[in-house]
Amino acid sequence: MSFNNLLYLVAVLFVLSACQQTPNQENSDYHSTASATPQINKNDKLTFKEYDIKTVGFLVYDGVNSLDVFGPHYVLGQLMGVERKFIALEPGNIKTVMGIEIVPNTTIDDVDSLDILVIPGGFRGTIEAAYDAKVHQWIRDIDKTTTYTASVCTGGWILASTGLLEGKKATTNWYDAENMLSKYGATFVDERYTNDGKYWTAAGVTAGMDMSLALLAEIAGEDYAQGVMLDMEYDPQPPFAGGSPEKTRPAVFEYMNGMYKAGVDAIIEEMEAGEADREALD
Amino acid sequence: MSFNNLLYLVAVLFVLSACQQTPNQENSDYHSTASATPQINKNDKLTFKEYDIKTVGFLVYDGVNSLDVFGPHYVLGQLMGVERKFIALEPGNIKTVMGIEIVPNTTIDDVDSLDILVIPGGFRGTIEAAYDAKVHQWIRDIDKTTTYTASVCTGGWILASTGLLEGKKATTNWYDAENMLSKYGATFVDERYTNDGKYWTAAGVTAGMDMSLALLAEIAGEDYAQGVMLDMEYDPQPPFAGGSPEKTRPAVFEYMNGMYKAGVDAIIEEMEAGEADREALD
Repeated sequence: MSFNNLLYLVAVLFVLSACQQTPNQENSDYHSTASATPQINKNDKLTFKEYDIKTVGFLVYDGVNSLDVFGPHYVLGQLMGVERKFIALEPGNIKTVMGIEIVPNTTIDDVDSLDILVIPGGFRGTIEAAYDAKVHQWIRDIDKTTTYTASVCTGGWILASTGLLEGKKATTNWYDAENMLSKYGATFVDERYTNDGKYWTAAGVTAGMDMSLALLAEIAGEDYAQGVMLDMEYDPQPPFAGGSPEKTRPAVFEYMNGMYKAGVDAIIEEMEAGEADREALD
Repeated sequence: MSFNNLLYLVAVLFVLSACQQTPNQENSDYHSTASATPQINKNDKLTFKEYDIKTVGFLVYDGVNSLDVFGPHYVLGQLMGVERKFIALEPGNIKTVMGIEIVPNTTIDDVDSLDILVIPGGFRGTIEAAYDAKVHQWIRDIDKTTTYTASVCTGGWILASTGLLEGKKATTNWYDAENMLSKYGATFVDERYTNDGKYWTAAGVTAGMDMSLALLAEIAGEDYAQGVMLDMEYDPQPPFAGGSPEKTRPAVFEYMNGMYKAGVDAIIEEMEAGEADREALD
């Protein structure tokens, strides 16, 4: 369930509560529409941080990983009053790596500032973007306007490729992580998510949700983030261990790692050959 | 990162491995393209269950919760050889509850069988579907053809409203969960996910991922599911406790519960009034 519109209401209540009004008074919209009487200890005040985030943009492209983008979109998109944008590299619909067609809101040519930029990962399209000078320039330009610049999974390869993570600690998808960041001058930290100043980076796919909840708490306070966490019933209970190289059975890990290597290395070689060709032409 | 196409390859390897071939032999596609030599104990065989799942369909509608659908889609969609379909109630694009426009693959009028049906939740559109006789009939018809019929979050309200969960145990989003299932004759169990025969049901939003991984393990074996789990780096580490009524600060829970109550009850009343009107006309 999601109650995006209703979150405006709860945000009002957070503010009211922070203003030291008692939660059981009768003059809030909540109590005028809900019949249940909350059993809240009067000392158990909700807190709400004021913030100045008005736009959150998600870079999307053919082959983007749907969960890389919809996880953070669901969390950060619930900041009240925020405008959410799926921003494509060019006009037209995009297809996720799993083949679902999505209608972006706009393109990079029409966006020149954002309060939060989120760069999700994927597969071929991600590597292509990491070698695309126009994408680099757009990210660097937008970054000058952001309060936070974030990446999820292999989106960290794109972000790092712009040079913005140089000398900074960051994380990314587990595959060849140290190398994929150090080649751009960033320092890999083996964390689920991390931040170095305004640069927030998450490990693979679902780590984007953990990062986004932490960022949401930084922006609007932990009560607000816990409200969103309850809305998405995020009390994860995976059916068995796994999800990181260390927790995965060695035989499974080796096969997955080999499969990634086969897929990724070929595309990187292709991109670097193209880059060398362009340099030779210059 | 997602390697849907490459998963065909790993599946082949799982089968080879299950056939007792040693993982370091030279005749697999994997070893011909990857240069790393997996360090696998020869006794550490990968296992792979054969299955007969060819189609997975996700019911989508205006107001569907994006994570309810993209979580299970990402997990179950990685079954090799499976056809994935976003199935809308009528022709045209749909918008998720967070406002992202998606192009469905087909409509309920054009789908008459599925191996797996997944019914995600949402807000207004979900409640409307739970009072829509055409939707009920389609789900009951499809269910006659499925190996598994599943719901996520308030999608459980839709599934239960068809009568298919009568006398069965099930779970759903935390809000008013016991009542929302018992009104349709199902027995609420307070679990992250559960199954009663072929009916798999998940608690709110992100519980759909846990359910889907468990279902994937049942279908293709735990090694396969652990491979997908590593692909999505699903080793969750929420930044703070929360995500269930019990783990949420009481003040936050009460506000969220009240907000849901305000939103949901009004729509249910509207739907039931409409149903009463239709009965009066009959």
